[in-house]
Amino acid sequence: MNEVTHIDKAAKTVTVKQLTDDSEYTESYDFLLLSPGAAPVVPPIPGLDNPLTHTLRNIPDMDKIMQTIQMNKPEHATVVGGGFIGLEMVEAFHRLGIQTTLLEMADQVMTPTDREMAGFAHAEIRQKGVDLRLETALSAAEFIPNITVASEDAGQSDQHQHLEGELNLTLSNGDSLTTDILIMAIGVRPETRLATEAGLETGPLGGIQVNASMQTSDPAIYAVGDAIEDTDFVTGQPALVPLAGPANRQGRMAADNMLGRNETYQGTQGTAICKVFDLAIASTGKNEKQLKRDGTNYEKVFVHTASHAGYYPGAEIVSFKLLFDPQSGQILGAQAAGKDGIDKRIDVIAVAQRAGMSVEQLQHLELTYAPPYGSAKDVINQAAFVATNIMKGDATPIHFDQIDQLSEDQLLLDVRNPGELQNGGYIDGAVNIPVDELRQRMDELPKDKEIIIYCQVGLRGNVAYRQLVNNGYKAKNLIGGYRTYCFAKA
Amino acid sequence: MNEVTHIDKAAKTVTVKQLTDDSEYTESYDFLLLSPGAAPVVPPIPGLDNPLTHTLRNIPDMDKIMQTIQMNKPEHATVVGGGFIGLEMVEAFHRLGIQTTLLEMADQVMTPTDREMAGFAHAEIRQKGVDLRLETALSAAEFIPNITVASEDAGQSDQHQHLEGELNLTLSNGDSLTTDILIMAIGVRPETRLATEAGLETGPLGGIQVNASMQTSDPAIYAVGDAIEDTDFVTGQPALVPLAGPANRQGRMAADNMLGRNETYQGTQGTAICKVFDLAIASTGKNEKQLKRDGTNYEKVFVHTASHAGYYPGAEIVSFKLLFDPQSGQILGAQAAGKDGIDKRIDVIAVAQRAGMSVEQLQHLELTYAPPYGSAKDVINQAAFVATNIMKGDATPIHFDQIDQLSEDQLLLDVRNPGELQNGGYIDGAVNIPVDELRQRMDELPKDKEIIIYCQVGLRGNVAYRQLVNNGYKAKNLIGGYRTYCFAKA
Repeated sequence: MNEVTHIDKAAKTVTVKQLTDDSEYTESYDFLLLSPGAAPVVPPIPGLDNPLTHTLRNIPDMDKIMQTIQMNKPEHATVVGGGFIGLEMVEAFHRLGIQTTLLEMADQVMTPTDREMAGFAHAEIRQKGVDLRLETALSAAEFIPNITVASEDAGQSDQHQHLEGELNLTLSNGDSLTTDILIMAIGVRPETRLATEAGLETGPLGGIQVNASMQTSDPAIYAVGDAIEDTDFVTGQPALVPLAGPANRQGRMAADNMLGRNETYQGTQGTAICKVFDLAIASTGKNEKQLKRDGTNYEKVFVHTASHAGYYPGAEIVSFKLLFDPQSGQILGAQAAGKDGIDKRIDVIAVAQRAGMSVEQLQHLELTYAPPYGSAKDVINQAAFVATNIMKGDATPIHFDQIDQLSEDQLLLDVRNPGELQNGGYIDGAVNIPVDELRQRMDELPKDKEIIIYCQVGLRGNVAYRQLVNNGYKAKNLIGGYRTYCFAKA
Repeated sequence: MNEVTHIDKAAKTVTVKQLTDDSEYTESYDFLLLSPGAAPVVPPIPGLDNPLTHTLRNIPDMDKIMQTIQMNKPEHATVVGGGFIGLEMVEAFHRLGIQTTLLEMADQVMTPTDREMAGFAHAEIRQKGVDLRLETALSAAEFIPNITVASEDAGQSDQHQHLEGELNLTLSNGDSLTTDILIMAIGVRPETRLATEAGLETGPLGGIQVNASMQTSDPAIYAVGDAIEDTDFVTGQPALVPLAGPANRQGRMAADNMLGRNETYQGTQGTAICKVFDLAIASTGKNEKQLKRDGTNYEKVFVHTASHAGYYPGAEIVSFKLLFDPQSGQILGAQAAGKDGIDKRIDVIAVAQRAGMSVEQLQHLELTYAPPYGSAKDVINQAAFVATNIMKGDATPIHFDQIDQLSEDQLLLDVRNPGELQNGGYIDGAVNIPVDELRQRMDELPKDKEIIIYCQVGLRGNVAYRQLVNNGYKAKNLIGGYRTYCFAKA
């Protein structure tokens, strides 16, 4: 293994250290490609420098983790950080039968998605028996080395066989926790040491700065991957997107350009997916948190509909969120969670967004349909129908995060069947009139109040909304229905 | 159940027959929607009018088929027609443990795909033990009613328990076949009787003619679904596309327009998918047969690559064909076959085609990637890379259907490892130099011949192609490799 330790831009040479014997030599270049990647961020928490604490970036890291598992026989693992790496580690520990705690400082895991979509992941993680603690950070760790190892020969329990010891963790809320292995997975930062020492420019977010040709501030040096700042496809702003897909395409384009072609990288949507036990959760484009922060004008819709024809075995609910500009119909972003067909729906939106399709055009998408694979009206078509209804003024939305702050002038109407309320719960204060009885019982509702309608997923609510509005009522329909409202709190 | 038996366009009324008592009444309309669907085509073959022969269009048809299965206890079924319905019936019979023969007049099943892609379906069907007979039609059927039923009490075999009898089939090649149930599934034609009797115009293909608003030649009458002729998205020509997705969207648009909106239907790509046992086979846009017939200028590429990261369990090969205009890069159509991720890849292309994306732009698609779901370079990206290589002149393709007609001035070079040739076969007359030895052994190849390179799927072939061309050789690479060549003959 060799490591490049220095770049001499003027001489167009690199210094290479041979790690076998620490000898060095100099190599010249016409063009140089930097792809040093990113390094795990380890916060300055006291006590992390111990043999039971690990980060995970590469295969040697994984080998060390597996060695610790073999040596220390952990009964309990703690993972800090609910991103891709953290979630995959939680699942891996769970598969090994190790009780696992996941600490996440934010109020949600999978921050590329919004809080209410992450709720599906929270429910799945907890359902598998993982101890998920949101809004909880690690404050300190203390390594307690083992003095004696229990001996089965001496009739002692096979508990506490740890060869190395255990960790006492102190959490931000004052709680403490004893654990046998600790994974720090709070994120990564671009690996820019070589580049900055060589005087190459970095961007406002700390990545190596490149132009659309993947060229750094030195025209003979290109850079790609997790180490660089690329351009956000939606906003045109700099972005750090440490994902494999963009890195791969950047590499191909940099190679072409170093050999005289003129390829340009066309921005990163941040399309991402994570397996969380039986669930997939995925996103592309901007999320609502980012749109709010940027002051972008947006609207959102939620649909929950079957991954394929419900009468064919194996269908699962796809919970889908679409963010769009309600004036232009521009697709801003999308998120999905569920046990089947999640990757496909986010891929469809990722293509449509990159192609500049509007939400209105999504109605017309002609996707594969046979009962094992889809529905004649796919999830995406349905989300587009709901969005277009709002844009055309055929529907007036209200959202899950407004339901707990209704005023005296609003009345909450649950249009599901009574059995659904009894079995699945309902929102406090709601009046129940099933949609099929609404035409007959409409006069039970006041015309001087705004009727806030909800059903399970939003479809019957829309039917009720049309009936009420056509009869002179003021009304709004809860987009995504009770299901969105519930999982937002999960 | 009521049946509309007559339309009076001038009076704006329909005559309705009540099927319970055959009484009739007249109903008036402001706007009328026709969605009578399509009816199975039954060719004028002698002997089809018997209790063991069925078509399948609706639930009552299925009930009759299931009744025949219960009554006649078939040991052998024959399905005529290898389209969606025929293939689904073959699978259903197979699941019931009934030996099945599939007769298809064409040289392939699933005619929306091209012959070489249908080869994957042929291999799957035969691997499951189904007796697939291509280029074989049904010429005649003879019903042999049962005279006596075997009696177990009398010690007779429980074979030939058929209550009703059996069929003797004569095939177009002179063969005969005895079968216990026969399904005619050779296709459908638009159900236009009501419309034509009312004087509504039909199109050149025999469907009810509508404009983009789904309006027939009578402005008060709209029509949708399998009964109409719609517009091909790629060619702009009339098309009969009896698929559920388009029908659904046409219905929504017709309803909007009948109530005063101005929605337009934006053409049909014919996106379709069929489950064939463990395999899915799907397509969108035009196939090569149609492009050839229309005289369209096109190029094609094949890739065979894993449905998700190969090191994660459950990955299957996606065999993918992309048809495009080699000058403009316009996407003309795509087909895919495999056991995982087929619907997703065709959906991606269906969106890209509808959005007017070019093959060059497909390189930049940013699709969901995590090892359980995809690859950092997805199938679609890879197909786009291959297509763009051809468009830029970085690769010179040769196709599977040209390999058996090489001239004296061409030399066939297999660049796979010798073990692959021994285990998986090779093309007659090929010289074998593994790609890793090519730089050293290049002088074994003649410079005055065109070197026709192939590997398993085309990737190593491209590496070899670049090496040869950079060293002054004339060369072509077999796109899709040996795998495409083999399945084209399946």
